[in-house]
Amino acid sequence: MADIQPFHVMELLRRARELEAAGRDIIHMEVGEPDFPTPQPIVEAASRFIANGAVHYTPGLGLPALREAIARFYHDRFGADVAPERIIITSGASGALMLALAATTNPGDEWLLPDPGYPSNRHLVRSFEGKAIAIDVGARQHYQPTPAQVEAHWSARTRGLMVATPANPTGTLLSGEALTHLHHSTSTQGGLLLVDEIYQGLTYGVESSTALAIPELGNAEDVFVVNSFSKYFGMTGWRLGWLVAPQAYVREIEKLAQHYFISPSTPAQQAALSAFKPGTIDILEARRHEFARRRDTLLPCLRELGFEIGSEPQGAFYIYANIATLAEDSEQFARKLIETAGVAITPGLDFGSHRPREHVRIAYTTHCERLLQAVERIRAAL
Amino acid sequence: MADIQPFHVMELLRRARELEAAGRDIIHMEVGEPDFPTPQPIVEAASRFIANGAVHYTPGLGLPALREAIARFYHDRFGADVAPERIIITSGASGALMLALAATTNPGDEWLLPDPGYPSNRHLVRSFEGKAIAIDVGARQHYQPTPAQVEAHWSARTRGLMVATPANPTGTLLSGEALTHLHHSTSTQGGLLLVDEIYQGLTYGVESSTALAIPELGNAEDVFVVNSFSKYFGMTGWRLGWLVAPQAYVREIEKLAQHYFISPSTPAQQAALSAFKPGTIDILEARRHEFARRRDTLLPCLRELGFEIGSEPQGAFYIYANIATLAEDSEQFARKLIETAGVAITPGLDFGSHRPREHVRIAYTTHCERLLQAVERIRAAL
Repeated sequence: MADIQPFHVMELLRRARELEAAGRDIIHMEVGEPDFPTPQPIVEAASRFIANGAVHYTPGLGLPALREAIARFYHDRFGADVAPERIIITSGASGALMLALAATTNPGDEWLLPDPGYPSNRHLVRSFEGKAIAIDVGARQHYQPTPAQVEAHWSARTRGLMVATPANPTGTLLSGEALTHLHHSTSTQGGLLLVDEIYQGLTYGVESSTALAIPELGNAEDVFVVNSFSKYFGMTGWRLGWLVAPQAYVREIEKLAQHYFISPSTPAQQAALSAFKPGTIDILEARRHEFARRRDTLLPCLRELGFEIGSEPQGAFYIYANIATLAEDSEQFARKLIETAGVAITPGLDFGSHRPREHVRIAYTTHCERLLQAVERIRAAL
Repeated sequence: MADIQPFHVMELLRRARELEAAGRDIIHMEVGEPDFPTPQPIVEAASRFIANGAVHYTPGLGLPALREAIARFYHDRFGADVAPERIIITSGASGALMLALAATTNPGDEWLLPDPGYPSNRHLVRSFEGKAIAIDVGARQHYQPTPAQVEAHWSARTRGLMVATPANPTGTLLSGEALTHLHHSTSTQGGLLLVDEIYQGLTYGVESSTALAIPELGNAEDVFVVNSFSKYFGMTGWRLGWLVAPQAYVREIEKLAQHYFISPSTPAQQAALSAFKPGTIDILEARRHEFARRRDTLLPCLRELGFEIGSEPQGAFYIYANIATLAEDSEQFARKLIETAGVAITPGLDFGSHRPREHVRIAYTTHCERLLQAVERIRAAL
């Protein structure tokens, strides 16, 4: 437990709530979930399903119809052929990561993770008595690890490499070519590649993609892909995600899924059956354009204020900025912004130990008018 | 992974589905979930909540209003004073067990578990690199461990004892006195007591109870209680449970809960707010009487057929029977019953390694008429 850290932003949030209780207006740019509601076609599917109360367990790997719907989505949207049998429905992407790590990680096994990165990943590795090894990534390499770094960090105990595209907190992507090279590195060493595609679909100016559409990776025996209904599909509170595992792992993971979760939420699965329908996708694409507009609004303003954005984010809904010219310490800076500007952002410390004091994450999960208001308030505070 | 076993009943179920696909009628007495739908007041609360789509994350420990509702339930129904701060809402009781074990178990730590017992418990212990130590329990001791057994199995590495009341697969209870004695044993050794109350409320001829109402246990620093909305409240598919942890563990568990789950299902939590309302409890109590009627119908019939039920079940919805006079091996027996009688039951092997070949679990999660039909078919098959 001593190795498991809390989210540091929680302390800031407690302070934000205090200020709000005292009547202050706080602009929340620390939030990791879309401000949009769950699309109506998805809500209506859930309502219809639960109406008669027949909300029983599903198979441990999820509803066959949903596994097939996801396979069709991979085919129709990305031209990727993924057997439904390899698709495991999980309790959020967290559940998918948990299953993939529990099924593959022995005590002392090492996983390579980019730093900065989503903090829960390394805590999940640690929970199964694995060891998370940080690969420091900077703006020049778009906050993504290189094959040379993977090779340099690889040891006899390394089990695999975890990457995210789009990434949290940086919003950067990995190209198909970059993924292929990374896979070559892990594969040559006999290790695994785990690709977090939780923010898939939320890309701006770039077509959304999947590692599963890359010929060398799509049916590889050593590639896992994690995905979620939370972000693009607007279903955070429903807690539903999925894991695409190599066929040889599916029976093993089924055992774990039954013991860990029995089955994923049935209302969420029934709701998600409507996530891929054309009417839903229309709503989601309109939201994507809105996110693009927000990014395009916020990015130049932040730069103008002195936030240094070394690698332009092309996905997710985050801007990762260097604030070294504005403040000495990102945590103090974040605290100051809450107190004096009424703006909540996330200090770098929540994403690892590679220069966290110089960085903050700013989420554009609120509308443009509010973002511009935040910019003005930050300007005044600076 | 080699130590993680699947549910053996799954193989039987595959065969059952084959037979059903070929037109055979199978009576399912292997199912571990109530056949009743989720009560309408709970469904309606969920429908109202999701209607506008605002289904966002909740705090990692769950909705404050739900934690308070559970605290009131403990007070009003059992006279137990439990601080809402100690109540952690989880993704099913599985999530509660996972958090309790992950927060307390170091690699090599031992947990004592009654055998027979619910199999996922030992696999969760194993997943966090702990060691599950079986305490063989028989009918004469009502399938519950004794303080003498706890002392005999205790080692320098023992972290605690896990018990269940009502228990799965045996349906037996632990009295307040028995729990107090067990706690005395674990406490003297400096260990933990984890009480699984997942089937709380489903007792027949005996008042339902909780370890938290026992003065010595209610606020003890070393007692965890796990509970669920699945069984008594009829909410299996929603995947919602809770953990009552000693105050000193709550901050630690909050860290894990955020990393493992982000938060429990929001629609499920909103639905569960209506679980304790008088109108809902009336529905649930009527169901409890129906379960009692089923038990009272099935038990004498099984005995007449030669099933030996050494300790009469007083809770849950299972009968655990010795079939040594009917067959040599419970797995072959279960297979035979599917093939020749069209009746599915669970062989003992799913519940541990203490005389599993002599035992089966029979669930009365189907109505009386159907139970009697099963009895007639079994009679013919024997």
